[in-house]
Amino acid sequence: MATVKLITDAEAEKIPAVKEVFDDIRAARKTDFINNFWRAMANDPALLKRTWEGLKAVMMVEGNIDPMTREMIYIAVSIANSCQYCIHSHTAQARAKGMSDETYGELLSIVSLAAQTNHLVTGMQVPIDPEFVA
Amino acid sequence: MATVKLITDAEAEKIPAVKEVFDDIRAARKTDFINNFWRAMANDPALLKRTWEGLKAVMMVEGNIDPMTREMIYIAVSIANSCQYCIHSHTAQARAKGMSDETYGELLSIVSLAAQTNHLVTGMQVPIDPEFVA
Amino acid sequence: MATVKLITDAEAEKIPAVKEVFDDIRAARKTDFINNFWRAMANDPALLKRTWEGLKAVMMVEGNIDPMTREMIYIAVSIANSCQYCIHSHTAQARAKGMSDETYGELLSIVSLAAQTNHLVTGMQVPIDPEFVA
Amino acid sequence: MATVKLITDAEAEKIPAVKEVFDDIRAARKTDFINNFWRAMANDPALLKRTWEGLKAVMMVEGNIDPMTREMIYIAVSIANSCQYCIHSHTAQARAKGMSDETYGELLSIVSLAAQTNHLVTGMQVPIDPEFVA
Amino acid sequence: MATVKLITDAEAEKIPAVKEVFDDIRAARKTDFINNFWRAMANDPALLKRTWEGLKAVMMVEGNIDPMTREMIYIAVSIANSCQYCIHSHTAQARAKGMSDETYGELLSIVSLAAQTNHLVTGMQVPIDPEFVA
Amino acid sequence: MATVKLITDAEAEKIPAVKEVFDDIRAARKTDFINNFWRAMANDPALLKRTWEGLKAVMMVEGNIDPMTREMIYIAVSIANSCQYCIHSHTAQARAKGMSDETYGELLSIVSLAAQTNHLVTGMQVPIDPEFVA
Repeated sequence: MATVKLITDAEAEKIPAVKEVFDDIRAARKTDFINNFWRAMANDPALLKRTWEGLKAVMMVEGNIDPMTREMIYIAVSIANSCQYCIHSHTAQARAKGMSDETYGELLSIVSLAAQTNHLVTGMQVPIDPEFVA
Repeated sequence: MATVKLITDAEAEKIPAVKEVFDDIRAARKTDFINNFWRAMANDPALLKRTWEGLKAVMMVEGNIDPMTREMIYIAVSIANSCQYCIHSHTAQARAKGMSDETYGELLSIVSLAAQTNHLVTGMQVPIDPEFVA
Repeated sequence: MATVKLITDAEAEKIPAVKEVFDDIRAARKTDFINNFWRAMANDPALLKRTWEGLKAVMMVEGNIDPMTREMIYIAVSIANSCQYCIHSHTAQARAKGMSDETYGELLSIVSLAAQTNHLVTGMQVPIDPEFVA
Repeated sequence: MATVKLITDAEAEKIPAVKEVFDDIRAARKTDFINNFWRAMANDPALLKRTWEGLKAVMMVEGNIDPMTREMIYIAVSIANSCQYCIHSHTAQARAKGMSDETYGELLSIVSLAAQTNHLVTGMQVPIDPEFVA
Repeated sequence: MATVKLITDAEAEKIPAVKEVFDDIRAARKTDFINNFWRAMANDPALLKRTWEGLKAVMMVEGNIDPMTREMIYIAVSIANSCQYCIHSHTAQARAKGMSDETYGELLSIVSLAAQTNHLVTGMQVPIDPEFVA
Repeated sequence: MATVKLITDAEAEKIPAVKEVFDDIRAARKTDFINNFWRAMANDPALLKRTWEGLKAVMMVEGNIDPMTREMIYIAVSIANSCQYCIHSHTAQARAKGMSDETYGELLSIVSLAAQTNHLVTGMQVPIDPEFVA
């Protein structure tokens, strides 16, 4: 029930700008599977390309944060923003990158504790301690 | 400009249930500093105690996620929930636990990318791939 | 799976305050179709009437913002508030009022960019430039 | 009270990757003014560049949606995401691009009506009409 | 630092549509005090009137929910939507209508518990029990 | 389509820490029914226990706010946080505790009015009146 149609591989073959990104996704991820997010985005080839390039630059680079933790931060934001698809896709990816059931439980504990204290702090409008300002 | 008064140390001395938690915070954190969040919460000693016990159980235990990463996940949720105080306090704590400027930049990159794709996915109402369902 | 029953036309016939609004919706929109939102609202005739009057006053008047753009702003808010029904209904209405696939792609690009920078700004707690204050 | 320092022009002079973006912002906007958002982002030159390129690709291109309306959609999302800085900066820019007080009033009317009906629909969990699914 | 100017009494005197609403607010609330929300709204007299009429119809009528509880529900929504002004104004009003410190503590406990479980449920994407569907 | 499996009674029998909480839920609620939230949480027995203890301490105690109103405040937060499961479960519980259709209509009216004015206030960035600061 998407608001756009999902571009099939057959359709992608006919749109070079889409085919190029789909090919790059497959090569970068070493899988033939293209998930629905990209098939929906393919309705706007420029947006598809920009988003994929952004994702590669942020999620698929070497850095201080390891790949599994990147997915876990992604999940945290997606929960707070109530994005059902994102929660499903990034939980699957975090698991594929090694997140155990125990680590997932820790993640949910932190996310839900943060939400609880976020609402307490916002409710009481607690003033920022000068000690927290650099 | 909190909606409650901030309980001072002098006031806490007179409320045993508050003093006990303040003492425990100081002992657990090895610092004399009690930040405003706890001083605001101290208006309701039972809520203060419950929240502090919850925080200890989630943030101050050994586990698979290291202490700095726990703070970074906390920041991610606090940003998505627009909690200004929480962002300041947990960014300060993440830095105290070793978060470098470079790691912080990576965190912000992931959080903002997630928000961007959260809104794209929600806008297009992308259906969940069967592959993502365990 | 609504939390209220959806009032049918047969039921509306028996509640004058509901029938009056349903008739007005049909006349104003020049269609016999009453969508589920109004059928759910009809459980509280006063709320139904107030909401319909509000909608007419904001969305069905001549003004500086054209009808298609009004729907697009509605979509933007509904995405940020994660309202699935609203996204579906207002995307359908924006399309009925002339939103092309290309324009829809532009809308999604703006909404998702805004979400990305919203999270960056909130994360860094950027102080407001004096130049932006009138 | 940002969580990062704001990079001054003097500092930017010493970081070629930042100076290049600042120069491009000044050239593209035909003004010497660099607002705090970019000065905060400059702590991470790669994120700065990526965000500026994204903004140019979405907000500074010819398209079906005119520049003033783009800013108005940006405002709508920023309100729903409670981003104070973003609201200030994009309201200033929408005004600079021609948004009158009257049009601004229409925008606020639509945004707040959408929020009202978003919460009604979500509260009642209204099922999506088949008519809205393409 | 509002994005609009706050209409003073002197200015309101010159705009009959504004003066009429201000007079009605003063009469209905039995006070001379007009808070900034209405002074900001007064930039758009039609929006001002519509909003005031909506507020009277919802918050100033006899009903099953008592006036203090109405304000407490208002606070709950305002916290979840991170509206600082709303939190301040409705907390003040709830207190004026009898909310004690103890009751306020109970409210904050419920609001923050709800936020915690909201995030847990959304994170785990818990399927709705058939028992909850009427 | 949860991201975790739902623990059945047969499985709970084999995990003492889960069985103990399930037994306590059944005893406290005087029903054999264990809803999916707890079955999902049971994947992490410590989180399950902590959450159940928190719920008992907040929702199942004598206090100034009556049980039905507690559920209504829960619903308000769950709507603003877009938590579908929570809306269904707490609406069912509010009804079981006496919420009539009329009272529910009042609740929805307040929640949606609050959302409308939240967005207006945030959009206009209305400064807090000194009168609202205690």
